Amino acid sequence: MAQKRIGNFSIKFQNPPTILSTAAIAGTKEAEGRLGSYYDQTLRDERYGEDSWEKAESKMQKETLMTAVSKGGISLNDLDYIFAGDLLNQCAGSHYGMRETSRPFLGLYGACSTMAESMTLGAMIVDGGYADHAACITSSHFCGAEKQYRYPLEYGGQRPPTAQWTVTGSGCAILAASGEGPYITGVTVGRIVDMGITDANNMGAAMAPAAYDTINNHLADHNIAPDYYDLILTGDLAQIGSEIVRDMFHKDGIELAEHYADCGNMVFYQKEQDVHAGASGCGCSAVVFCAYIMDKLKKGELNKVLFVGTGALMNPGSLTQGESIPSIAHAVSIERSLA
Amino acid sequence: MAQKRIGNFSIKFQNPPTILSTAAIAGTKEAEGRLGSYYDQTLRDERYGEDSWEKAESKMQKETLMTAVSKGGISLNDLDYIFAGDLLNQCAGSHYGMRETSRPFLGLYGACSTMAESMTLGAMIVDGGYADHAACITSSHFCGAEKQYRYPLEYGGQRPPTAQWTVTGSGCAILAASGEGPYITGVTVGRIVDMGITDANNMGAAMAPAAYDTINNHLADHNIAPDYYDLILTGDLAQIGSEIVRDMFHKDGIELAEHYADCGNMVFYQKEQDVHAGASGCGCSAVVFCAYIMDKLKKGELNKVLFVGTGALMNPGSLTQGESIPSIAHAVSIERSLA
Repeated sequence: MAQKRIGNFSIKFQNPPTILSTAAIAGTKEAEGRLGSYYDQTLRDERYGEDSWEKAESKMQKETLMTAVSKGGISLNDLDYIFAGDLLNQCAGSHYGMRETSRPFLGLYGACSTMAESMTLGAMIVDGGYADHAACITSSHFCGAEKQYRYPLEYGGQRPPTAQWTVTGSGCAILAASGEGPYITGVTVGRIVDMGITDANNMGAAMAPAAYDTINNHLADHNIAPDYYDLILTGDLAQIGSEIVRDMFHKDGIELAEHYADCGNMVFYQKEQDVHAGASGCGCSAVVFCAYIMDKLKKGELNKVLFVGTGALMNPGSLTQGESIPSIAHAVSIERSLA
Repeated sequence: MAQKRIGNFSIKFQNPPTILSTAAIAGTKEAEGRLGSYYDQTLRDERYGEDSWEKAESKMQKETLMTAVSKGGISLNDLDYIFAGDLLNQCAGSHYGMRETSRPFLGLYGACSTMAESMTLGAMIVDGGYADHAACITSSHFCGAEKQYRYPLEYGGQRPPTAQWTVTGSGCAILAASGEGPYITGVTVGRIVDMGITDANNMGAAMAPAAYDTINNHLADHNIAPDYYDLILTGDLAQIGSEIVRDMFHKDGIELAEHYADCGNMVFYQKEQDVHAGASGCGCSAVVFCAYIMDKLKKGELNKVLFVGTGALMNPGSLTQGESIPSIAHAVSIERSLA
């Protein structure tokens, strides 16, 4: 068996990469939400000085990367690789955002699991001795996502109660071969899971079984219980999906209780801000992790976190062709200090 | 500096992964092309028994994976990771194609560079001791690509002479930690390069500078001349792009001569099959490498190949917003035997 594997699905790092720095930029609605004070920057308007929402999203990625690089005390040229992806068709948000970096670039598509996927691959590449520094970055934009996945905003479409609100935001984590931590101690790459959900307005339900599968695999591979972690943090299942995850574990006789939370419930004041089931989008788990969770890890208010990015892997056309929503979840184990 | 790096951009593997097996499935027009006899299977019609082109593409990926797994003498459960991506919005071709594998999945978006990108990451992950077996797979479908990127086929749009023809095909390579070779001895990850081309019907010209950049970086990092390789194989620049690459090196005083070819010129009989500038699509370099180049490597007719996947990273919407076409190229060094 490959030497760094543990169990059937997990990797335990021999040289755990440190999370050197993180940065997060978020939109106007996010600024008024629960984590408003944690972002490095919030937008004054959704265009961010650009002439389209898509260009605004690319600018967010670029500015978030530069902020993370600066907070890490390194320069752009220190980045051996950039791992990036987003929700726009052909991941255009990342490509235009990273176009001027002139650094080696590896494009990912993991839908809303992209932050965790980029940290998974970035951590392997740093642990493996292929890079001293890797940037992991993603973004989403409410207006661009609505236009692409649902209806133009001007149409004024009604959103069902199960719908989630795409976060306008970008998060970036810089991983490094050495440093003080927190560290990425392991990863569990997810499998595609499809339980037959066909409602694009109920993504949380579609993604919950993938989160359950990956968390289960991670716990089994390490032979640990959920309370090994201060927090198992999925994202972005929101209200409905996170309750399904709790229920699935409950049926196994496991209560996640206060050891579990979901990024989709943490960005907005759900009732007051009228976001229905909660938050979603690549930017959701990215800004929650990069702004809020990293702050708690650095302060010692959290010591061990399992960050489980979740993604719904359909496109609008596949649903009109009668397909259901395949989903995935990748888990990144983050610990404040090494055992 | 990270231990496995060489020069500014390249990786030299300490445990070079073997390419255990490859498989390629291609469409009806490809069956009548130059490499018709090399494919493991060719389609009888573009639907492949499915009710949409997109479902046909997913089925091609699935069948190609299963063929490669079978040719490698392993089972699906031996795959530690699947790296996959395609051109469909949100990479849906890969997600539906790989949905039933139940193996850890990492989604990529590299446009037509995806075969090389997946082999790059797959090789790092195998060399690094994270996997014994990794599958690297991609696909494209002419009908689905035309519908998504240009016009519905029924529209009967005219194609300009610079346009390329998207290959209907899928290629898969299984990488393994041990075996007889050919081996992946190193990789050079590309940077995004954008020289301001805005014509989506002239992708070859847009991508050529990215190919030049990556090949240059690779040669400089290893301090070798192009004739180190029996073949430097870009894909899919086709007629116009490949001539630009030759010209760019010529200006540096370097003649690529017979050490250089492009996958976009190898799939079709260009004049007779009326494909204008040549072939393109994720499937282009995938089927050329997996069907033809691997055959030549196994027979010893080629010993050292630098496989340089090229991708154009725009989407149709970004072009209508006045953007140019950012491009990328990733180089994979493949040698028949280890020095």
